[in-house]
Amino acid sequence: MSGKRDPSAPIGVFDSGLGGLTVVRALAAALPQESLVYLGDTARVPYGTRSAGTVVRYARGCGRLLARHGVKMLVVACNTVSAVALDVLRVELDMPVVGVIEPGARAAVRASRTGRIGVLATAGTVGSGAYPRAVNGLDSRAEVRQQAAPILIPLAEEGWLDGDVPRLVARRYLEALFAQDPALDTLVLGCTHYPLLAETLSQEADRVAGRPIAIVDSGVAAAAELVQLLGARDLCAPSGPGSLRLMVTDRPGRFPEVAARFLGRDTDGLDVEQVDL
Amino acid sequence: MSGKRDPSAPIGVFDSGLGGLTVVRALAAALPQESLVYLGDTARVPYGTRSAGTVVRYARGCGRLLARHGVKMLVVACNTVSAVALDVLRVELDMPVVGVIEPGARAAVRASRTGRIGVLATAGTVGSGAYPRAVNGLDSRAEVRQQAAPILIPLAEEGWLDGDVPRLVARRYLEALFAQDPALDTLVLGCTHYPLLAETLSQEADRVAGRPIAIVDSGVAAAAELVQLLGARDLCAPSGPGSLRLMVTDRPGRFPEVAARFLGRDTDGLDVEQVDL
Repeated sequence: MSGKRDPSAPIGVFDSGLGGLTVVRALAAALPQESLVYLGDTARVPYGTRSAGTVVRYARGCGRLLARHGVKMLVVACNTVSAVALDVLRVELDMPVVGVIEPGARAAVRASRTGRIGVLATAGTVGSGAYPRAVNGLDSRAEVRQQAAPILIPLAEEGWLDGDVPRLVARRYLEALFAQDPALDTLVLGCTHYPLLAETLSQEADRVAGRPIAIVDSGVAAAAELVQLLGARDLCAPSGPGSLRLMVTDRPGRFPEVAARFLGRDTDGLDVEQVDL
Repeated sequence: MSGKRDPSAPIGVFDSGLGGLTVVRALAAALPQESLVYLGDTARVPYGTRSAGTVVRYARGCGRLLARHGVKMLVVACNTVSAVALDVLRVELDMPVVGVIEPGARAAVRASRTGRIGVLATAGTVGSGAYPRAVNGLDSRAEVRQQAAPILIPLAEEGWLDGDVPRLVARRYLEALFAQDPALDTLVLGCTHYPLLAETLSQEADRVAGRPIAIVDSGVAAAAELVQLLGARDLCAPSGPGSLRLMVTDRPGRFPEVAARFLGRDTDGLDVEQVDL
């Protein structure tokens, strides 16, 4: 790490697409004085089904672009990238880099009474083994079971958040997860899209388990850790309110609608720019 | 067009991902003596949610790569590309270029008794207006209604082809489509992923309409037209059986399973190569 960074610089956040705006929403709530620059690689979304080598290459491009925009630290609001590319980014970028998996794992270990933890995530995140590794690094006796839940992503993007279809899809994935370990007591939402379906997932998890299951949102957990990290490194913005700037690599017709869904507010009046990677 | 092409050269087929393998399946059945080279841009799938400019740029890269492999003609097995980039490819590549929309539109006009035609497709294809334009170019009195059906794509990729979830998703899209025009008598499957769900879509269309609805698979229609085009241009391969070579821009862990689902056969023993674009 080089010398002191400028506390008034923005925090950079990136994701493969717009799902990471759920993390921006959590950050803006926890840190209203901080300015945020978000990069969504909407031209190449989704990363979750791509090979690790491709994800690392894409993540490097995103990190470098945000570094050129002078951010003081980087939040990788993408579980897939956090799973496979965090070390590369930490080595290459001269700034603190926070992913969502380690905070999610810490929150899950705190939330679980029995250490029996379930994770729903993309196939890429599941295949990386990053959640089991992170959890077992904190508690070697904890047991993590995982289930890829890809169809939850288009449901979130399309705004199919409740009703029959999301309920049946959630139930099918949760039944597969709990079949691996009926004693799970905590469920990690290991994809930035899943918080939009949190209520349906929570209800179906309780139903499948037959008792209340604790829900951990990795994005919210990452935002909470960032508050501490900024303080510890003396990087808190001196005054607010912070600004929000959005960059995307592609801007399809439905951008305003989908972005608003993840961000929890409309994008009118926001600074939105299309960039090349 | 330049001079005579080599009839023994392969036919190039490309798609944004692996869905176009349903077109390869139809081509291999219709033209067993022809060699096929398939390019799936799996590193950048899906195209259906991207802007037209991005789709044109990607399509150009795919077309050029296949041209360098010496193909005698090009099949664009992707409705999104066929909708927005066919003219660019026809101008830039010195070979016949066949899309799936014009053959699909012709087959729909032939199938429909009333000229009331429904189309399920990606948001990109729907937004382009390519199907209504193609149909009305053939029959100015025909009326086309469209419905974007994005969630059918991950259902096809994940192999959720029958049962409650695909049925409910299909019903919801078809109800929205028939609400626009209850008199539709023909349904075009305007995305290469949808043929995997053809049975469910056909049953639900009949149920929503209350009478039998004709189903048109644009990929099958394109294969049928290709048979005629090869004959008319004297480009039929002199002898067979043809070979099949697959190129992908990314090769995720589940490639063999997903490719086999679309291709209708397993990929063991096939020549599969990862290429950069």
